[in-house]
Amino acid sequence: MLFFENDYGEGAHEKILEGLQKTNYEKLPGYETDCYCERARKKIKQACGCPEADVFFLAGGTQTNAVVIRSMLRPYEGVIAAGTGHVSSHEAGAIEYTGHKVLELPDHQGKIEAEELKAYLKKFYGDESHEHMVFPGMVYISHPTEYGTLYSKQELKALFSICCDYRIPLYIDGARLGYGLMSRETDVTLPFLAEHCHVFYIGGTKVGALCGEAVVFTKNNTPDHFMTLVKQQGALPAKGRLLGVQFDVLFTENLYTELGRRAIETAELLKEAFRENGYTFYLESPTNQQFILLEDVQAEQLSREVSFSFWEKPDATHTVVRFVTSWATREEDIEKLKQLLRKYRKNDG
Amino acid sequence: MLFFENDYGEGAHEKILEGLQKTNYEKLPGYETDCYCERARKKIKQACGCPEADVFFLAGGTQTNAVVIRSMLRPYEGVIAAGTGHVSSHEAGAIEYTGHKVLELPDHQGKIEAEELKAYLKKFYGDESHEHMVFPGMVYISHPTEYGTLYSKQELKALFSICCDYRIPLYIDGARLGYGLMSRETDVTLPFLAEHCHVFYIGGTKVGALCGEAVVFTKNNTPDHFMTLVKQQGALPAKGRLLGVQFDVLFTENLYTELGRRAIETAELLKEAFRENGYTFYLESPTNQQFILLEDVQAEQLSREVSFSFWEKPDATHTVVRFVTSWATREEDIEKLKQLLRKYRKNDG
Amino acid sequence: MLFFENDYGEGAHEKILEGLQKTNYEKLPGYETDCYCERARKKIKQACGCPEADVFFLAGGTQTNAVVIRSMLRPYEGVIAAGTGHVSSHEAGAIEYTGHKVLELPDHQGKIEAEELKAYLKKFYGDESHEHMVFPGMVYISHPTEYGTLYSKQELKALFSICCDYRIPLYIDGARLGYGLMSRETDVTLPFLAEHCHVFYIGGTKVGALCGEAVVFTKNNTPDHFMTLVKQQGALPAKGRLLGVQFDVLFTENLYTELGRRAIETAELLKEAFRENGYTFYLESPTNQQFILLEDVQAEQLSREVSFSFWEKPDATHTVVRFVTSWATREEDIEKLKQLLRKYRKNDG
Amino acid sequence: MLFFENDYGEGAHEKILEGLQKTNYEKLPGYETDCYCERARKKIKQACGCPEADVFFLAGGTQTNAVVIRSMLRPYEGVIAAGTGHVSSHEAGAIEYTGHKVLELPDHQGKIEAEELKAYLKKFYGDESHEHMVFPGMVYISHPTEYGTLYSKQELKALFSICCDYRIPLYIDGARLGYGLMSRETDVTLPFLAEHCHVFYIGGTKVGALCGEAVVFTKNNTPDHFMTLVKQQGALPAKGRLLGVQFDVLFTENLYTELGRRAIETAELLKEAFRENGYTFYLESPTNQQFILLEDVQAEQLSREVSFSFWEKPDATHTVVRFVTSWATREEDIEKLKQLLRKYRKNDG
Repeated sequence: MLFFENDYGEGAHEKILEGLQKTNYEKLPGYETDCYCERARKKIKQACGCPEADVFFLAGGTQTNAVVIRSMLRPYEGVIAAGTGHVSSHEAGAIEYTGHKVLELPDHQGKIEAEELKAYLKKFYGDESHEHMVFPGMVYISHPTEYGTLYSKQELKALFSICCDYRIPLYIDGARLGYGLMSRETDVTLPFLAEHCHVFYIGGTKVGALCGEAVVFTKNNTPDHFMTLVKQQGALPAKGRLLGVQFDVLFTENLYTELGRRAIETAELLKEAFRENGYTFYLESPTNQQFILLEDVQAEQLSREVSFSFWEKPDATHTVVRFVTSWATREEDIEKLKQLLRKYRKNDG
Repeated sequence: MLFFENDYGEGAHEKILEGLQKTNYEKLPGYETDCYCERARKKIKQACGCPEADVFFLAGGTQTNAVVIRSMLRPYEGVIAAGTGHVSSHEAGAIEYTGHKVLELPDHQGKIEAEELKAYLKKFYGDESHEHMVFPGMVYISHPTEYGTLYSKQELKALFSICCDYRIPLYIDGARLGYGLMSRETDVTLPFLAEHCHVFYIGGTKVGALCGEAVVFTKNNTPDHFMTLVKQQGALPAKGRLLGVQFDVLFTENLYTELGRRAIETAELLKEAFRENGYTFYLESPTNQQFILLEDVQAEQLSREVSFSFWEKPDATHTVVRFVTSWATREEDIEKLKQLLRKYRKNDG
Repeated sequence: MLFFENDYGEGAHEKILEGLQKTNYEKLPGYETDCYCERARKKIKQACGCPEADVFFLAGGTQTNAVVIRSMLRPYEGVIAAGTGHVSSHEAGAIEYTGHKVLELPDHQGKIEAEELKAYLKKFYGDESHEHMVFPGMVYISHPTEYGTLYSKQELKALFSICCDYRIPLYIDGARLGYGLMSRETDVTLPFLAEHCHVFYIGGTKVGALCGEAVVFTKNNTPDHFMTLVKQQGALPAKGRLLGVQFDVLFTENLYTELGRRAIETAELLKEAFRENGYTFYLESPTNQQFILLEDVQAEQLSREVSFSFWEKPDATHTVVRFVTSWATREEDIEKLKQLLRKYRKNDG
Repeated sequence: MLFFENDYGEGAHEKILEGLQKTNYEKLPGYETDCYCERARKKIKQACGCPEADVFFLAGGTQTNAVVIRSMLRPYEGVIAAGTGHVSSHEAGAIEYTGHKVLELPDHQGKIEAEELKAYLKKFYGDESHEHMVFPGMVYISHPTEYGTLYSKQELKALFSICCDYRIPLYIDGARLGYGLMSRETDVTLPFLAEHCHVFYIGGTKVGALCGEAVVFTKNNTPDHFMTLVKQQGALPAKGRLLGVQFDVLFTENLYTELGRRAIETAELLKEAFRENGYTFYLESPTNQQFILLEDVQAEQLSREVSFSFWEKPDATHTVVRFVTSWATREEDIEKLKQLLRKYRKNDG
């Protein structure tokens, strides 16, 4: 069975496993105070071009979102996000569990628009009478989004500028950041992104690590006693080395970049395979997630030989599905997929 | 520098790393639905002699406590624990963060006493007028406790029986369960423990794993949609395999037992080393944590050559310290420690 | 200055003040255990035609919503509401503060539609893969809605039936219930409403009381230890008599009904006054809240002589405003308003 | 039946009812923006000798504690209180429900001691290694305490000074403040108290009002958007006038002081009645709550003719009970009680 279901289907890149092996018997202090966490922090700050940043490691995305958002919101505030944002709908209410509302803006293929954000904030803060409403206290975006789409430099700049005007932080969920940075259609670099937000995280779990996300506060704005909050929310690992070693390896000799590039290369081949067989793209994604509109019959046929994700049913006879490549996808699998796509393409002539 | 600071100073047992390596490129479904989680569940249920149990994997102890306790308490209830319980004082308020009070009972070398528990519950439930107080809705104990002490069969039975009488669950924090089960002074087995509580967890992080705790609901009493709660509290790993593979290895060919035994063997040698050099034990611990009363001068001297934990200062000139062995402690390190203990023993003769 | 700003601008009906006066020196037990609470409970159950109901008194609407919703949701659930629902947007995040998400459905002049509710629930519960999403665990509607509109018997029945099918409670916010029940266009009676929901509240604060809402659980479904939850959320008054006496008076000799009728009578006169002067209704409301579309100039002129609420700006030159009558509105005020409406009507001929 | 059960057994002082009556038909804006709230604020600030204070009105004590404590704690902090503090044990976990731990200090007849507070804070903040514990972020005391006892000027000063040293606020729960200020044994005045804490509340519910507590922030330290937090926690009344009018009356012509004095006068007569009949005081209370040690038989006999509160059973044959006077207690009731006390006194000679 071919595998294009998601980007967390394999374990970790060999170098990460080697790193864990090599350091295994070193006796290290716990709770992210070890030398590998420290080393990884330095490398990440350097890669971000942001020496004044503070870097912390957490285990997974939902956890990271809940801890970061809670740590930066005041109790009367909520977080603005696209309706399709991961925090809005796929985290089982993890943000509301922290006591904060997710204030939804309309999404445009997963993205929010600067003009709509501005209008929302202007309406709220322009009028004095909103004391009985949740204050918009933070903006959450994902890059790439849940639809694989990317913000341009200009778009990020606009969002960041609005957030600065209203003195609320811009937070970027980078669960798949590696794939976004290596897209052929992006002009956003890691230092640009670090400069144009207040906090973001670099996803490890979906980009070659066993687990782990690196949170980066970029504006000397780490919340007081952040690690105590991490502990309180159950997110502080005793063996911090597990995260430290992995990120140290990922940020050594550009491995993180390299892993991103591989997924993009196979994603491009994947797109070509769909395109040349006449399949319909549900939307244009420049990263490793591709959304395809299939006839139900096709979806059923393909699902017997290749695994992919069901996304939604736009009408009675069609299905939107998601095909994903990752750091671990091999070109030979794309070749095999190509055969299948040919076999099951629509007989329309 | 010799290391006796804690039992999470090293990575993982080789077989665990091998397991991760060997399964690394298998394409597995996420969120603990993979075959290794399944296999580990089966082995754990068998080891517990409890085929009807439900088993879940979480990453760390504080997380596990917060998720399990919240999932089993009703909103008007709190959890009873010893004042020295991990949930009472060393989790940064993680339980209160879930909205529940920790109701403290006096500790006796880390343990609570059945008679005191009974009296507390009797007082509360015997009188109708407690509607303005937090209802005791669960009992939390740790085994071994934070002081390395253990409950006997009889003690566990008594606590369990009281909990059953009052229809509140007994929850056992087994962060160091492996060391408790292999103690030379215990009569408690894993099946006995599983039988005499409503839920417990088998600690992996401190017993040879990189991370991971296995929660076992033993009485057909898994809370509805438990995995959704795990997700909501940010504790559900995308790559569940990381936990599944580790526990599969730990419960293959008695590795978990074996790791427990090793720590106990070195702990016994350690105790002997202290004893034969005339050191004073702060309390009697039958497991891998040993608490020693040192003169401040001794503590200072030893700390230059061996790492251990500061525990508390009982008076102006003494310090209680903790020496810990683990699955990874080598006999040669005990030998070296013995030299130091001889060198710095009190010159009282 | 004429007053049509809201329905909580005056104190309480004379009979309520008399009731408080008359009982003032009786020595009564606290916390809603007094005889007036008991008496009020009986009368309310009778008025609802629901002898098996449980009735509790809380002080205000937001508080009531937060307590009731939290008490009936399980931790993995959220509450469905119209986007315009009071709980969705005008309670400063009080529901999210309890840890639960408000799941928004589109509103139709403040109401939700049975078909859309059904589709939402069917989509969620029809598919097994929603473990990472918030479970819809309750439906919240307001009657009258925030736009003064009402559900018909048939509509309520349909919503209730869907809720029963999915075994989730239907909760009706009756902050202005008295005005809804006395509307000339409603076919819903108090017993019908009590029968067709699982819990609702009878608003006192906006219908003649100083404060107070009566929560009615109609299906032998009062959450365990509900009063402890009320206490925990800070909503239990020491002098429960303040609420008990008021509701006892309100449900004596149909005062509650009478107060509702008065507001409806003046609302009908108010509508006529707007209509005969050619004003545009923003929507059709059969209760005591009327929404009028004014030219900005008109709004400005009127606001100098009569107080009303700003609602929203649909475009650059118009404003939607709200005029409200209440149990305390006098016909002579409507007469005076009529003069003003004539004076400031559009000169379009 | 004579009534000495508590100080909230009657309604409100006549002048308060008159005030409500007189202002009843004035059309006032809601949510504590009316002129009576404003007037009451001014009078309270003046009575406190603290023109820079901010004053807010809430309905009851538990609500006030939950809102104030949450508003002033940072998420990693808890509140220090005596084990007997109202927030520790009689509010059904209302503080934990806000997500914060109550950190208990030993009580001395309901009070905490400055030296013990200092030692606690010194231990916590003197050592850097407490990142996994709840930070003590506020001190809560009640004055009078739950045992009717009072802090002296010197004691308050000492506590305040320690709090200032550690930059954490001192919060005084003044549910019965009126009775404390009028005690014959106190040297604490309202201005002194206002000066020597960061926030406190003036209890209305137990001192002559139907409901209501006035929160006073004394150090230009009102939390941002405090009213939004009040709303979010369900504590903001639509008809703020209900609280405004009451406190306006209470602080007109020293009514609050007068009500306090009355309860103290009758309390002194009550004490005399017990003393001259040879009853044993459980502790010395200089305010309106008196704790008496009765033989079980006496308690039973008395309870048939006078209502009082059961407090605790110190041994198998004795009971501690509480007798309370209030603003509404009449001297003739004390006289009648005196007869009973004589009738049921111990026949020991």
